[in-house]
Amino acid sequence: MRYKCVVQYDGSLFLGFQVQTKGRTVQKEIEQVLQQTFLETITIHPAGRTDGGVHALGQVFHFDTKADLKEWNMKKALNTLLPKDIYISSVEKVSDEFHARYGVRGKEYHYTLDLGEYNPLFRHYRYYPPFKNIQLEPMIEASKHYIGTHDFRSFTKNKALEDTVRTIYSWDVHVEGTVVTMKIIGNGFMHHMIRILVAMLVECGRGKCSQEDIKWILAQKNRVYAPKIAPSAGLVLVRVFYDLTDLTMKS
Amino acid sequence: MRYKCVVQYDGSLFLGFQVQTKGRTVQKEIEQVLQQTFLETITIHPAGRTDGGVHALGQVFHFDTKADLKEWNMKKALNTLLPKDIYISSVEKVSDEFHARYGVRGKEYHYTLDLGEYNPLFRHYRYYPPFKNIQLEPMIEASKHYIGTHDFRSFTKNKALEDTVRTIYSWDVHVEGTVVTMKIIGNGFMHHMIRILVAMLVECGRGKCSQEDIKWILAQKNRVYAPKIAPSAGLVLVRVFYDLTDLTMKS
Repeated sequence: MRYKCVVQYDGSLFLGFQVQTKGRTVQKEIEQVLQQTFLETITIHPAGRTDGGVHALGQVFHFDTKADLKEWNMKKALNTLLPKDIYISSVEKVSDEFHARYGVRGKEYHYTLDLGEYNPLFRHYRYYPPFKNIQLEPMIEASKHYIGTHDFRSFTKNKALEDTVRTIYSWDVHVEGTVVTMKIIGNGFMHHMIRILVAMLVECGRGKCSQEDIKWILAQKNRVYAPKIAPSAGLVLVRVFYDLTDLTMKS
Repeated sequence: MRYKCVVQYDGSLFLGFQVQTKGRTVQKEIEQVLQQTFLETITIHPAGRTDGGVHALGQVFHFDTKADLKEWNMKKALNTLLPKDIYISSVEKVSDEFHARYGVRGKEYHYTLDLGEYNPLFRHYRYYPPFKNIQLEPMIEASKHYIGTHDFRSFTKNKALEDTVRTIYSWDVHVEGTVVTMKIIGNGFMHHMIRILVAMLVECGRGKCSQEDIKWILAQKNRVYAPKIAPSAGLVLVRVFYDLTDLTMKS
């Protein structure tokens, strides 16, 4: 039996999603609960990793087991044993053809900035840039240069050997008072990519970087021109798309 | 010099406000920073205590020191040294006649329930009652019985020797989707009082308690009839009033 699960987690107290030799990770917590429940070693396969401090409301993983449980019973069994900062919001039996990683067609992330005064209640969920007089207009304008298919080599952490071309379908900016939420949908995102893209928008908002600079940095295909990175705290993986028709119907 | 400070804190990682022999408290963190800054032992005087897990956006305290700093410099100095879950939002020099506790005329608390599915990102800030089919109407109706001047002896923790008569000026219920925020203003609240009052409203929403029961329990002046208590996570101290005219202008 293959099960597809949608999982929500608060990334604040995790070193990230993926199992590492040391430290608390989401994957390790879930695999421990599966082992405890089914008395067999089960490896889960996520849609992708998230870094420490990054949250999820719609991360997806799959796993295989001989156990044949009703979907609702599986959900209940896992949530009863999982720690309070992880919650399985949906369980679905799927065919062997479904693969949580290989099947990904797109992802939606939200990044939240607060341009107002610091509030300790939101410190794990919003980025409070330590700069004065950040203007919204240049940030919104600059984000439009990100939309489309580009080589995002300037905006990724690693000296990537992989293909660094990605498509960003939309980058919507919602403003409510001092809170700025960016809703980003793309076919895939490299390590740190969104956080670097957001940090450059903040530079535009500060007047440290022009619209022309953004286009120029994209063209350079070299991270040295985009050295900043926004904190993980503002970032949430909201949804993983497995169907292109879902992608055209943005949430 | 006497300074009045407004302080915000995330109560999740504190045992409460007041210094205790063991464990992390808001008061201890602030007094340590004052000691570090002014090289003298300074005791702070809060408007009142809050329990572990209870948050604040508008707690008030005062302290005295020989140091004469500009208000803005004092705010900056303290926030630089305070941990990320405490933030001083305002500092004001006041006369010796101001006392953060004795001068209190009223307080505003918010309590947030979420009647939808559990979400780990809000677990420290909302109460997710583990009951199905909670109805809003009976909760809103029952809350009206709390408004006014009553002996709230049935709704407090301790076998109170003190006077247990309090006045609740308003108990407003705001609903947005599945999220129910109760905005409560009163001249004072006893230990656990709001959390017990909220727990009884949830009983009304479940159909376990009628409108008549609420009136009857109030009249009994005995906690045995209101044994439940809602979690501290949903509770925030939003504002402390020192002026009766402010009280009539609800936030």
